[in-house]
Amino acid sequence: MYKTGQVTIKDIAKALDISPSTVSRALKDHPDISPSTKKAVNDLAEELKYEPNAIALSLRSNETKTIGVIIPEIVHFFFSTVISGIEDVAYQQGYNVIVSQTNETYEREVSDTKAMAAHRVDGLLVSVSKETKDFSHFKELLERGIPIVFFDRICEELKTHRIVIDDFQSAFSAVEHLISTGKRRIAHIYGDQNLLICRQRFDGYKAALEKHNIPYDESLVALAGDHDFDSVKSITSAMLDKGGNPNGIFAHNDMVAYGAMLAIKERNIAIPDEMGIVGFSNWNFSSLIQPGLSSISQSGFEMGQEAAKMFIEQVQLKEEEFVPTTRVIPSKLIIRESTVRH
Amino acid sequence: MYKTGQVTIKDIAKALDISPSTVSRALKDHPDISPSTKKAVNDLAEELKYEPNAIALSLRSNETKTIGVIIPEIVHFFFSTVISGIEDVAYQQGYNVIVSQTNETYEREVSDTKAMAAHRVDGLLVSVSKETKDFSHFKELLERGIPIVFFDRICEELKTHRIVIDDFQSAFSAVEHLISTGKRRIAHIYGDQNLLICRQRFDGYKAALEKHNIPYDESLVALAGDHDFDSVKSITSAMLDKGGNPNGIFAHNDMVAYGAMLAIKERNIAIPDEMGIVGFSNWNFSSLIQPGLSSISQSGFEMGQEAAKMFIEQVQLKEEEFVPTTRVIPSKLIIRESTVRH
Repeated sequence: MYKTGQVTIKDIAKALDISPSTVSRALKDHPDISPSTKKAVNDLAEELKYEPNAIALSLRSNETKTIGVIIPEIVHFFFSTVISGIEDVAYQQGYNVIVSQTNETYEREVSDTKAMAAHRVDGLLVSVSKETKDFSHFKELLERGIPIVFFDRICEELKTHRIVIDDFQSAFSAVEHLISTGKRRIAHIYGDQNLLICRQRFDGYKAALEKHNIPYDESLVALAGDHDFDSVKSITSAMLDKGGNPNGIFAHNDMVAYGAMLAIKERNIAIPDEMGIVGFSNWNFSSLIQPGLSSISQSGFEMGQEAAKMFIEQVQLKEEEFVPTTRVIPSKLIIRESTVRH
Repeated sequence: MYKTGQVTIKDIAKALDISPSTVSRALKDHPDISPSTKKAVNDLAEELKYEPNAIALSLRSNETKTIGVIIPEIVHFFFSTVISGIEDVAYQQGYNVIVSQTNETYEREVSDTKAMAAHRVDGLLVSVSKETKDFSHFKELLERGIPIVFFDRICEELKTHRIVIDDFQSAFSAVEHLISTGKRRIAHIYGDQNLLICRQRFDGYKAALEKHNIPYDESLVALAGDHDFDSVKSITSAMLDKGGNPNGIFAHNDMVAYGAMLAIKERNIAIPDEMGIVGFSNWNFSSLIQPGLSSISQSGFEMGQEAAKMFIEQVQLKEEEFVPTTRVIPSKLIIRESTVRH
């Protein structure tokens, strides 16, 4: 069933229904592990011709010095900066970087993941599509010993390194900032709730309202849907027509905030006096447009650097030494004229 | 020297210092080819154990159904849209697409090209970096039978398919439009003159001035250098300080035009009355900023689609059937408030 030299600690763990770390410790004769477990592990390891670090060694000798990156959309400024951060570390360490975009579809994510594996990348850095609910395409790679680091849009159910920002707290501070400028009718244009980051931003919005005794009002929330300016403009217009009378908008990213601004300008609503706006991600255009857009700065470059570093650290470890870790990159609110008159 | 089965028509052509099409026709006993040439070609083909279509056949059987794309910078809206166009065709035809960016350096372009070849992509779609003067890394791939299609920033010396827009004519029409709005002191913020497209845009600028009897003035031209807003703003400010009194600017791309606008707004120069501005590429933000930026629309999506189509057509041909073709994608001037008051 197993080919020699391809058996991993995880295979043994799975076969015996125990954890990989138990297997690892059993093989090392660790005192915490019962003699019966040790015997079962060692017997099976012998039967399967388990070779310690076979995968790690094989990976090292076969390494292609290429990191595969899978992202939802290249056109997003945030993801462009993440790629630059990844490359900044990777090329210095002698790695090449190849990128595929899923165009936010599950189908292409599966196809891209398989293609990257077929091209024998040394590992993947991934931010998942908004459609993805099943992660077995990633699980399969992990089982073959190909490391994956998830960034920004992570997978919670797989044991990998992850790099995120605190989306809940960032959203909370964005909304609290709007409240501090005197706004209490605050709308939220939210992203696909299949994505953890979008749920966390929505939760942060609600928590800030609650802290300041502002009732949550369903007429003030709308799904961004497609992220082109015109469709966000329509969605914002429709929301304004509902009569909820918002005087603030928290948009789940800057692109959405730009689209919302188009609707607000069309109605000659004064920014920031009659309507304060905060975005998320601090795109390069947010300082260029008028009024400048207040936004959560989420350092994509730093996130990319960290993702590449975590990956390179991981490939130098033996499989059983690997401890999945989640790193949180600091974010901060950048205040511009869309919320505070200068 | 040559391994059996790896000899191509190009190898024979090179060894005899004749063109590949001559070799191809000689092998086919074409009446236009002299008997002595036919004999030389057939003798060498026999000596080198040339097998017709060896490369094409081997490629076809070994194909990975992956297209590699090498571009200067992912963050550029134009290149993002090209990638989307490539993917639009490629995924429909069962291909995956992987992308590497060179960050405008020759060194990384060479490294990315080798990595793509090592990953056995079926072919490359390439837009060259602004540093690239030596094309031997691409030549090597072509000699190994890996097709390359160049787009936008092409290589003139290699016999490949190419897709471009008419940069000279587009620049000419942009400048002529400024002249038609009454401007005669027209500045040009130009791109790296190592790139053919930048030289053609500069030439188009000069030709439009000449047609309208406007003398070329060196104090009105400046190199954009780095393309971030702040550095373009400084360059524009420095140019305005020279006292050349421009009342129009033709920027070699939209990003540069945005940076120039920052300098103009800082000095309270009225757009378009005191200063008309035209960009190039028609980025998505050019309709969003105020005033909207007049620009040359260069359909990146269509260019990407065409590049993928040309590649897919090429891999279905026998090597000797391939005829290098240059396709020109139509461009057009989009007029907004940066040149004409609405």
